Amino acid sequence: MPRCRVRVSTWRRSVVGGAGGVEACRSGEVPYGGGRFNGQEGSEDSDSSVNRKSYPTTLRRHPSRMDQSESELKRFMSGLTLAECVGFVIIILTIVWLQYYRGGFAWSSDYKVMFNWHPLLMILSMIFLYANVMLVYRTFRHERKKKLKLVHAGLFLVIFVMAVIGLSAVFNVHNTAGTPNMYSLHSWLGICTMVLFACQWLCGLLSFLFPGVRHALRAWYLPVHTFFGMVVFILASCTVLMGLLEKAIFTLNDKTDTPYQFLPREAVVVNVMGILVALFAGLVIFLVGNPVFKRLSLPEDEMLLNEPIN
Amino acid sequence: MPRCRVRVSTWRRSVVGGAGGVEACRSGEVPYGGGRFNGQEGSEDSDSSVNRKSYPTTLRRHPSRMDQSESELKRFMSGLTLAECVGFVIIILTIVWLQYYRGGFAWSSDYKVMFNWHPLLMILSMIFLYANVMLVYRTFRHERKKKLKLVHAGLFLVIFVMAVIGLSAVFNVHNTAGTPNMYSLHSWLGICTMVLFACQWLCGLLSFLFPGVRHALRAWYLPVHTFFGMVVFILASCTVLMGLLEKAIFTLNDKTDTPYQFLPREAVVVNVMGILVALFAGLVIFLVGNPVFKRLSLPEDEMLLNEPIN
Repeated sequence: MPRCRVRVSTWRRSVVGGAGGVEACRSGEVPYGGGRFNGQEGSEDSDSSVNRKSYPTTLRRHPSRMDQSESELKRFMSGLTLAECVGFVIIILTIVWLQYYRGGFAWSSDYKVMFNWHPLLMILSMIFLYANVMLVYRTFRHERKKKLKLVHAGLFLVIFVMAVIGLSAVFNVHNTAGTPNMYSLHSWLGICTMVLFACQWLCGLLSFLFPGVRHALRAWYLPVHTFFGMVVFILASCTVLMGLLEKAIFTLNDKTDTPYQFLPREAVVVNVMGILVALFAGLVIFLVGNPVFKRLSLPEDEMLLNEPIN
Repeated sequence: MPRCRVRVSTWRRSVVGGAGGVEACRSGEVPYGGGRFNGQEGSEDSDSSVNRKSYPTTLRRHPSRMDQSESELKRFMSGLTLAECVGFVIIILTIVWLQYYRGGFAWSSDYKVMFNWHPLLMILSMIFLYANVMLVYRTFRHERKKKLKLVHAGLFLVIFVMAVIGLSAVFNVHNTAGTPNMYSLHSWLGICTMVLFACQWLCGLLSFLFPGVRHALRAWYLPVHTFFGMVVFILASCTVLMGLLEKAIFTLNDKTDTPYQFLPREAVVVNVMGILVALFAGLVIFLVGNPVFKRLSLPEDEMLLNEPIN
């Protein structure tokens, strides 16, 4: 999981020295890079220079704006801390649920236990890590853009691989148990999410990390990429909620003791997990979709990608 | 259902004559009302005057900007048309599914038929109508703001009443069949959605329609209201998807003929409905969350609310 610490002093230095246009825009009086959707980092390579050119220096260095930026950073940090806490609780509850009520984890012929990798890996990768990687530009706002790009793309690849392992677990279980694959609405939506995620990753790689792509194309694609990144996250959250519901219905109604409708302890754990996933998704959308929390462009962001990364 | 026609000529007139600041901001070079989240209409009472004061007239009347606005309106119209088509298909499929496979509609002691009001009313109110009422400022951008406010609040009240009737149907069914209420994750998330919706409506009413509320408070609350409006819609879409899955598992696995896992025709209908609900939600979030589609403020928007509405 990526670190969640933000160095206020470094961030403040970058505000004063760097992209004043972006800083001033936080007051809502100057723009933030021509983005179409919320949540985009809006600083694709040369955005900071655009901002610097467009607005007077007085706006960039106005003390009240700097103070406002700091208060916004504090708000961001509070929201991020809350989201991370909720995220950790979700992961812990998932492990407790699967270990205590569902028999634990093993990649073996016992398909009921093997299945448990599916919810764990999907929640860990597509909810918790996905959210953190979406937020990487805002969480590590003092780092160089090109380094963040590589971290962003690299971690999404790790997430994709984790999710594929999580999916293969459920396919293995179905094949062993003789259950057909891909029949429920949960699985249909899940596959749509994964296909969209793969396309999103590939297009992002070709647009932002492939050298020689025209700036105009990158600038056009940035808000589209950000929008679909959020769509994939919302779809993933929704798919996880449906998966939790499906699992609760199948397993709790299959048991001889208290069924789902009489809310045994396991049902309460699963339902609370679901509500926390929805809360986590809401907090993350707030943090990603709020333009005032945007990372400020640093002067070195404008350097070409094929230079060595320090 | 609200009309979805937009008068291009009127809209263009308002672009040229009215809130040039907002228009110019569509190019991404000037701001759009100091909003914090996407999707806000950003013109709470006197925002247009703020925009007019802040930027030179040349920006407001530049022909290329006007052309761009028209192309954006076309994009909005295309997206809206597609969303409406998908929405209609969802409603038709819901009626076909419930009428053909689930025995039709009746508010009677036959609880299996009475239940059918629940999916129909929830999808109609919380998905299709909710989306259209969220979009009312953008769809009817040539109308006066105060009229749109009343329509927005009034229709949301109608939606809330419809949803409550839809909920009462399922409570009646549970009470008649002796099934406990509020046990599944679907119902937990649904109740959270309805409570948030009620709070959202009440706060919106007090903030934007209650005379004498300070402008600063309204301006602060507007992006919060827009953000939570979108959150309620996403939660509602997610709850509907979970409801469809739950119903498919319960009813199809209960039957003696083809169960859910062998994908009978009814399962395909339900799954396709679910995918269309997700597609519809994505299109609506695109239309509501895209600041370039924002309604332009008209000069008469600045008039006080307690004046007569024409």
